[in-house]
Amino acid sequence: MNPKVVIFDVDGVMTTGQFFYSADGKAMKVFGPDDNDALNELVNFVDFRFVSADLKGFDISRKRITEDMGFKLDLVPSAERPDWIKQIYELKDVIYMGDGIFDHLVMDQVGYSIAPGNAFVSAKRAADYVTERTGGDRAVAEACAHIVSKFFSKNSKFGQL
Amino acid sequence: MNPKVVIFDVDGVMTTGQFFYSADGKAMKVFGPDDNDALNELVNFVDFRFVSADLKGFDISRKRITEDMGFKLDLVPSAERPDWIKQIYELKDVIYMGDGIFDHLVMDQVGYSIAPGNAFVSAKRAADYVTERTGGDRAVAEACAHIVSKFFSKNSKFGQL
Amino acid sequence: MNPKVVIFDVDGVMTTGQFFYSADGKAMKVFGPDDNDALNELVNFVDFRFVSADLKGFDISRKRITEDMGFKLDLVPSAERPDWIKQIYELKDVIYMGDGIFDHLVMDQVGYSIAPGNAFVSAKRAADYVTERTGGDRAVAEACAHIVSKFFSKNSKFGQL
Amino acid sequence: MNPKVVIFDVDGVMTTGQFFYSADGKAMKVFGPDDNDALNELVNFVDFRFVSADLKGFDISRKRITEDMGFKLDLVPSAERPDWIKQIYELKDVIYMGDGIFDHLVMDQVGYSIAPGNAFVSAKRAADYVTERTGGDRAVAEACAHIVSKFFSKNSKFGQL
Repeated sequence: MNPKVVIFDVDGVMTTGQFFYSADGKAMKVFGPDDNDALNELVNFVDFRFVSADLKGFDISRKRITEDMGFKLDLVPSAERPDWIKQIYELKDVIYMGDGIFDHLVMDQVGYSIAPGNAFVSAKRAADYVTERTGGDRAVAEACAHIVSKFFSKNSKFGQL
Repeated sequence: MNPKVVIFDVDGVMTTGQFFYSADGKAMKVFGPDDNDALNELVNFVDFRFVSADLKGFDISRKRITEDMGFKLDLVPSAERPDWIKQIYELKDVIYMGDGIFDHLVMDQVGYSIAPGNAFVSAKRAADYVTERTGGDRAVAEACAHIVSKFFSKNSKFGQL
Repeated sequence: MNPKVVIFDVDGVMTTGQFFYSADGKAMKVFGPDDNDALNELVNFVDFRFVSADLKGFDISRKRITEDMGFKLDLVPSAERPDWIKQIYELKDVIYMGDGIFDHLVMDQVGYSIAPGNAFVSAKRAADYVTERTGGDRAVAEACAHIVSKFFSKNSKFGQL
Repeated sequence: MNPKVVIFDVDGVMTTGQFFYSADGKAMKVFGPDDNDALNELVNFVDFRFVSADLKGFDISRKRITEDMGFKLDLVPSAERPDWIKQIYELKDVIYMGDGIFDHLVMDQVGYSIAPGNAFVSAKRAADYVTERTGGDRAVAEACAHIVSKFFSKNSKFGQL
């Protein structure tokens, strides 16, 4: 495989998957360490972008992913993701990282797939690679290091894994 | 058993069980990924509803369960739940999912019972099925998939477990 | 031993020990499920009270322990606790539950001591009993059931452990 | 080695590494129990200071580390830390505690290094000592006890480990 793009799901991958609710609604999400640093190294090797299915919490995700980190983020329901990806890329050129109960439907169609260590069981079974770390706790950092090492270079800033 | 309804406890089942307190009181609860998606698939097979014993945090639970997810929620103390259930259903037709220190008293009376993996020890001992995942971390998603697979259909959108 | 009182530390015992900080300071603490229900059963067997060393977060602890749960709470630094206890009780009549780095100094003097499963190593070594559950995740509920079963009654509402 | 200073990273060492985001941005970080008490004992043996690479969350870190705990804190990106340390200390006299994806680059140059139990794999491999406890959950308290026991005194207030 010659990856052209990495598509990262947001909730459960960049976050712990948790939604902190007050009586006013969805108030906070939890992002973690190292993922931003690792993505800023991954950008030297391959394009990547983010996708979220969470409409009510989209402002929170956009604040972190787009405003604070400067990366591209789209709002696409899980069920529509295979078609959405096909409109932009060849499925075989795509690396997809997801964690959810229906993400196996996407993973079965792309070139390579990654699940965080705490993904739903069907996502972990469908994924080509499962990180040791969990979503919002360095799963994306580990995935970045894995992608660079497997597809691009053994001698990156990530060092030996 | 031919289940007519599934009754889900909220705190510790749909949430991590944690109460985030500020100096002004109970401020937030933590809901998790996949549970909403799984419930929207479960609805094709069986009725379900939610029950909470938490008066002070009821506005938070109602915001998530009723307003944002669109499901039925009642406020019923643990000790009154068997009688409350009996007024509406035949106990033998009820699947109950709970996690608390006195939920074994409900579980001993219903047709089938489920506890999340981090429930109190007496609830886990009383339950017919204990999920691997914990409350607020896909326990309900896993329970939905288990219920559909055990009582309704091996060929659902949940796929092979 | 014939226990006259149980003294529970707050942070790390009733809470996860975590302090949520905003730029304005200590904003939130995390309390957990079942502890309140278990304490309302323990009250039928023995007196208990709470103690905290956290001055900056005392308003949060007081809101939960005193206002919402209705229990007695004092602010006493760890180092002063043995003397404080001696002024009110005979040390041999006291059950103490704590988790901190210097709580072994209290535990060495009281009649019986309990540590939550995630306490500092020296507290766990000094304690007579270590709960399986962790602070803010049912450690106090488990301790209540243990205390009733060990010192008072095998046939309580807590059931078989 | 005769340590002259201990330099502690903040995020992931004093905190869980998590960033709580609302739609307005980085809102909260999570500090833990015992670390402050342990540092107030460590100060009897060796100087220490804190360093953070988190610009957007620096006000939160400063509130906790500088205002509430009274310790010295500098804002220095990971990549610039070796040079920054060299301008103030002899690298061989420095103990450094960090957790991040590029902290191994610092650890390789200082006299002694410590990683919390949940650090990135490369930091754990580079560190001379890895704590059992994790960042924001007593990792620093454990590191303080380890430093005092290894380099200064077996008979401190920390007791036997």
